Amino acid sequence: MTRRPPRAAPRRAGKGDAPGRGDPRQRPAVRRAQPVDGLRGRTGSRGRPRPEALSELGGDQVEGRRAVLELLTVGRRAVRRVLLAEDQDPSPQLDRIEELAGRLRVPVETVPRARLDAKARTESPQGVVALARPLDPVPLEELCRPDRAGTPAFLLVAAGITDPRNLGALLRSAECAGVRGVVLPRHRSARLSPTGAKTAAGAIGHLSFAVVGGVPAALSDLRDLGVWSIGLAGESAQSLYELPLGEGPVALVVGSEEKGLAPLVRKRCDAIAAIPQHGALPSLNVGVAGAVACFEVARQRSAAGSRPPG
Amino acid sequence: MTRRPPRAAPRRAGKGDAPGRGDPRQRPAVRRAQPVDGLRGRTGSRGRPRPEALSELGGDQVEGRRAVLELLTVGRRAVRRVLLAEDQDPSPQLDRIEELAGRLRVPVETVPRARLDAKARTESPQGVVALARPLDPVPLEELCRPDRAGTPAFLLVAAGITDPRNLGALLRSAECAGVRGVVLPRHRSARLSPTGAKTAAGAIGHLSFAVVGGVPAALSDLRDLGVWSIGLAGESAQSLYELPLGEGPVALVVGSEEKGLAPLVRKRCDAIAAIPQHGALPSLNVGVAGAVACFEVARQRSAAGSRPPG
Repeated sequence: MTRRPPRAAPRRAGKGDAPGRGDPRQRPAVRRAQPVDGLRGRTGSRGRPRPEALSELGGDQVEGRRAVLELLTVGRRAVRRVLLAEDQDPSPQLDRIEELAGRLRVPVETVPRARLDAKARTESPQGVVALARPLDPVPLEELCRPDRAGTPAFLLVAAGITDPRNLGALLRSAECAGVRGVVLPRHRSARLSPTGAKTAAGAIGHLSFAVVGGVPAALSDLRDLGVWSIGLAGESAQSLYELPLGEGPVALVVGSEEKGLAPLVRKRCDAIAAIPQHGALPSLNVGVAGAVACFEVARQRSAAGSRPPG
Repeated sequence: MTRRPPRAAPRRAGKGDAPGRGDPRQRPAVRRAQPVDGLRGRTGSRGRPRPEALSELGGDQVEGRRAVLELLTVGRRAVRRVLLAEDQDPSPQLDRIEELAGRLRVPVETVPRARLDAKARTESPQGVVALARPLDPVPLEELCRPDRAGTPAFLLVAAGITDPRNLGALLRSAECAGVRGVVLPRHRSARLSPTGAKTAAGAIGHLSFAVVGGVPAALSDLRDLGVWSIGLAGESAQSLYELPLGEGPVALVVGSEEKGLAPLVRKRCDAIAAIPQHGALPSLNVGVAGAVACFEVARQRSAAGSRPPG
């Protein structure tokens, strides 16, 4: 199960961002920055998605000092308002949040601690809540292009992670390892809730997200787009370390916490591999397994040195 | 900073398990299963540690289905009692917990949910709390021996992790990567609290722990015992991947969440290395960084194949 797909030029429209199982030829070509698939049914008359459609991906409320600081630093998304709890001890992070908000002309409101905590949707907002424009999903194709430096695509497919903390932790690690695009299924997946965004420690602002109706179809599309998909499955006899991960565009596919990869997802991956285990416990946490795999891709890419994009 | 220490035969007593900075010659040789250093002051007249001394390491209350199941499966520690909440949906994990407890003659009490939740010290005990004998620390020397298969020691030094969730998550990952011994400082470190034990998902039962008065002294002892210590520091120019981690006994040293490695700890490590980062975020979560490093040791060990113990 370790076939490498033939390199293919990115198509303009693919099944991965198609709403159902109909004939893809009947659907319009995907345009940059257009919301993907199922969201289309809820876009307004000018093709601009309505807020309730966009908010499907989440990211509209960000809590915690590190996550809010990163949101303001990245500056890719409009921030509507920052709420700070009164009577906090001085902190360089809080100073920096106020300074950045001022520079970006984002209103900062100091509110009683009780009001902030009532507004917060995580357990420990650390006295800071930011209200931002929700994240815009992008078409799958957009994730598959090399970056400006010519580095081949490096994607993470979170195929059914349901705990927002696990998803957030994995996104943070993936971003550090060089992942730039994330594929999330519309259903049975955690969203970028305040808890997920806080755990991600600002990673969501540096990543691009595609939301897909079905992961199996998206994996077929990735293959057509020249991206090699590797599913992580603890019981596989194939060691991840023996796969050539450092060459060309790759997508790591991580299954759900309880059930791992669904049968059809597993079938559509180009390779299935395990991180060899050396302990008595049955398995790694899903976020950690994903992190170890992402860093293995990064290690192999560094070892392979600079190559032309795949 | 990548010197390898000369191999040395394990000493019978060392500074690392000495209570202070006094003359080590005045202290008795360390015996097997004796609690280490500072705990000695609180041992009873027969040299058996009193419960309050042992409980310093924690592990006396374990919560959550996976952690309790692993506690009973390992069977290395006496379990006094298992509490189950009434009115839980049937679950194979709960069945297995009851079955194992029955086999081990551990009393199982079914109690109202409110009573269980009142007893619980984690947010979500998942209807299960086990009361067990606290973990016994072991002398540092004991952690440094090859295992029965002749595999050289593989240690983790958690030098100041203060969040029990981070510590628990790191212990789980480390166990999966093949770590067998963990060094914890007595002060300014999370303990194996119910939260830590739950996050560790049963790993604490498979690991041996040494509690040390000071990490710098323990690192000197590790060097004398022939264990190579590698401190993780994100800003280091030395890539972890370029170090020969697959040969001989190693100890990975992970610093605190906020401040990383303390200056004296850093100075005493045989090597300081970073996991190369490829993203925009400033750093990985400490537990994930430790996990990635542990699995790099495991990868290099597998690649090196079977060698005689170092």
